[in-house]
Amino acid sequence: MSVNSGRHCLSKIFQPVTIVSKTANLGRQDVTSKSQRLMLELGIIQQAVPGCFHFLPLGMKSLEKLIRIVDSEMLKIEGQKVMFPGLIDSKLWKTSGRLEDSSELFQLKDRHNHDYLLSPTHEEVASELISRLGHISYKHYPLRLYQITVKYRDELKPRFGLMRGREFLMKDMYSFDTDVHSARKTYEEVCQCYDSIFKKIGVGFLKVLGTSGTMGGNLSHEYHYLAHVGEDRILLCQNCNYLANVQLSGSCKCPKCGEQTKLDIKNSIEVGHTFFLGVKYSKSLKAHFLSKNAKPEVLQMGSYGMGLSRLIAASVEVLSTEQEMRWPDSLAPYNIVILPPKAGSKEEAKTKNIAEKLYVALEGQIEGLKDNVLLDDRLSLTLGRRFLDAKRVGYRYIVVINKRAADVVPLFEFNDIKTNTRLYLSENELLTYIKDNTVF
Amino acid sequence: MSVNSGRHCLSKIFQPVTIVSKTANLGRQDVTSKSQRLMLELGIIQQAVPGCFHFLPLGMKSLEKLIRIVDSEMLKIEGQKVMFPGLIDSKLWKTSGRLEDSSELFQLKDRHNHDYLLSPTHEEVASELISRLGHISYKHYPLRLYQITVKYRDELKPRFGLMRGREFLMKDMYSFDTDVHSARKTYEEVCQCYDSIFKKIGVGFLKVLGTSGTMGGNLSHEYHYLAHVGEDRILLCQNCNYLANVQLSGSCKCPKCGEQTKLDIKNSIEVGHTFFLGVKYSKSLKAHFLSKNAKPEVLQMGSYGMGLSRLIAASVEVLSTEQEMRWPDSLAPYNIVILPPKAGSKEEAKTKNIAEKLYVALEGQIEGLKDNVLLDDRLSLTLGRRFLDAKRVGYRYIVVINKRAADVVPLFEFNDIKTNTRLYLSENELLTYIKDNTVF
Repeated sequence: MSVNSGRHCLSKIFQPVTIVSKTANLGRQDVTSKSQRLMLELGIIQQAVPGCFHFLPLGMKSLEKLIRIVDSEMLKIEGQKVMFPGLIDSKLWKTSGRLEDSSELFQLKDRHNHDYLLSPTHEEVASELISRLGHISYKHYPLRLYQITVKYRDELKPRFGLMRGREFLMKDMYSFDTDVHSARKTYEEVCQCYDSIFKKIGVGFLKVLGTSGTMGGNLSHEYHYLAHVGEDRILLCQNCNYLANVQLSGSCKCPKCGEQTKLDIKNSIEVGHTFFLGVKYSKSLKAHFLSKNAKPEVLQMGSYGMGLSRLIAASVEVLSTEQEMRWPDSLAPYNIVILPPKAGSKEEAKTKNIAEKLYVALEGQIEGLKDNVLLDDRLSLTLGRRFLDAKRVGYRYIVVINKRAADVVPLFEFNDIKTNTRLYLSENELLTYIKDNTVF
Repeated sequence: MSVNSGRHCLSKIFQPVTIVSKTANLGRQDVTSKSQRLMLELGIIQQAVPGCFHFLPLGMKSLEKLIRIVDSEMLKIEGQKVMFPGLIDSKLWKTSGRLEDSSELFQLKDRHNHDYLLSPTHEEVASELISRLGHISYKHYPLRLYQITVKYRDELKPRFGLMRGREFLMKDMYSFDTDVHSARKTYEEVCQCYDSIFKKIGVGFLKVLGTSGTMGGNLSHEYHYLAHVGEDRILLCQNCNYLANVQLSGSCKCPKCGEQTKLDIKNSIEVGHTFFLGVKYSKSLKAHFLSKNAKPEVLQMGSYGMGLSRLIAASVEVLSTEQEMRWPDSLAPYNIVILPPKAGSKEEAKTKNIAEKLYVALEGQIEGLKDNVLLDDRLSLTLGRRFLDAKRVGYRYIVVINKRAADVVPLFEFNDIKTNTRLYLSENELLTYIKDNTVF
């Protein structure tokens, strides 16, 4: 993120909406969701080709915040970060049987005419890595490897911007255990880790029984955000609180309590999926361990996906209005924006350095605000115009430096757009408000 | 990186050399350099297919250190981090003329038979992004966008492990300026930034006049590490200190002073390359800005590459012996490893908790050691065996907890493998030594 002598200044940020007169060229693009439109219009992303997007600086900053949350939670369950290649030998997928339904796979050949695919997921790759290392003793399991890498899927109809793209950033973890009992324990731990991640993100989510789809295995859970635009449908039984993907149950009866009337079906966006795979991949790809009896045995696997680029868009989709973006505090590109008076105004003359001083106080005294305070230094624009811009981009706290900032004890117009609150606060009061009301 | 109640413990790290009896299966792999062999044998990377590698946890940790260095230096020159798609519409390269020599390009079609390539570099993509945003005012330039993403090249002969792979991690920056003067200034600033990055990494480098190759443009510099295995050749004139890629000069005469005898030619590995491109891409792809006279004019571009995965391998190549890996302090997966006594030994009984206490002191009192202290808790192995392992992996500081640690004032066997020093130091002396001798 661009900074000017240590300050993050809006004039230095490549955000097309602030620098081109018309909004970003949406003409060529097929806009199918609110979040996609807002993120394009407000310079968070830009479409390159259908289903493939540029992350512009503000989108990138949000994405890196999400990555930090994921990394810190993965660490707590002994997840070890790795990076697998994206270019995958097709024979691995032939071995697992997944090459048969390959309509969504990008496939290519190298100069030697060898077949590759751009992997949308890495169960085969992870299994083969273990396999080629030979037989590792049971003592060294469980093993939990994860990566955060770009994945590819040749969607028939890419849509909803980052939510159903052809190129997307995904966190995927693969677990290996020596027996079913241990593997189920791992599965539970990773699910708890997912709960923690989604709680940290702070957007309301549902954890439901999932369908295994083409992944296989015999147990799965899905994490969903409720949203009209969502392509999944969730069954909620008001009688017994049963929650599941509609595909699991049909839709007219609760599979748990038999209830038929108190059923809700809601559209939702899948943002995470955990699979208990058993030996589906480890068997065919020979991911074995050496047992206590010194015999090779097949490992039990789990696979755990989280669509990071999709999560950013889904959060924006859930929280935004039609005209204004909203972010969870955890993922907002900035948490607070300071608007100094317009150049040449009498307020400007009277409040010299006050914006700077507040900036330093915020960054210095609130740990979560480090690199999260933005100065809107487009001083040729009115405060009103800049206020509307900030509100539209969805910065939660907007501080306006107006004539009250020239008081003996400077007072700041403090706006909390989440609670629709406007207050005049001293610097100390402002710091306290933020500390008390923000989960970074 | 895996931790155990907040400690980084070797037993919890997926490093195949420590967990399989034979070294990683090298049989199928074509080993062509020392760094490749050492990194494979010692569980830093693993080959997936020729030219495509898994980064295992220790390799990943090193890579993330390098990324942090690059990010912090890019920030200083107002580099704004973005992420461009890897899947590129082939027509962009057709427009620039680069599709004609496409032997090293991975190309593919989507389900609609549209042509794509996996981009090895993004000059066209960056130009087209600017182009499609319409005409941005001259006031908003210069603009410096960079990304750290996976790139692809269909090498005829992938070799030297990460140094010439088909899939690699690269930092690439693209600069846009409104006139040649400003663009040259940008070019100089980015070169200085590169100098800073290479100094921070700490491996001796040469900055030489470069060849523009297929990239085009009229000025370029290359950053090289000298190494026998290097595929480039550098001309050094001992008379006038002229430095250039041999391809620039032919090899028998210094182009600057005419000297013919005092010339050295050395093999080297290119680890960075800066290009002043002028309008080569911006013209054909219509990356225009709006001038003071409100007319669209072509932007001046620069492009700046740094092969991050290659840099890791090149550093190891330069610093290692045939049998033992060595890292620059800046990129070592860990800077220090602590070896507690063998389980059941009399030293163990006498030095309870001392390793833990030292671990906490190191992490707590030396900022650069946060998450950089490793505990080799494989207590069934002798200290001697674990010392050799640590030395082979190239951890610079190895602390052995032996009987002297049971003294009234505990003394630690402190080994600095860089300087081949062995000392008995108290905790305070040890902390001081590290502070005085390490650049993190």
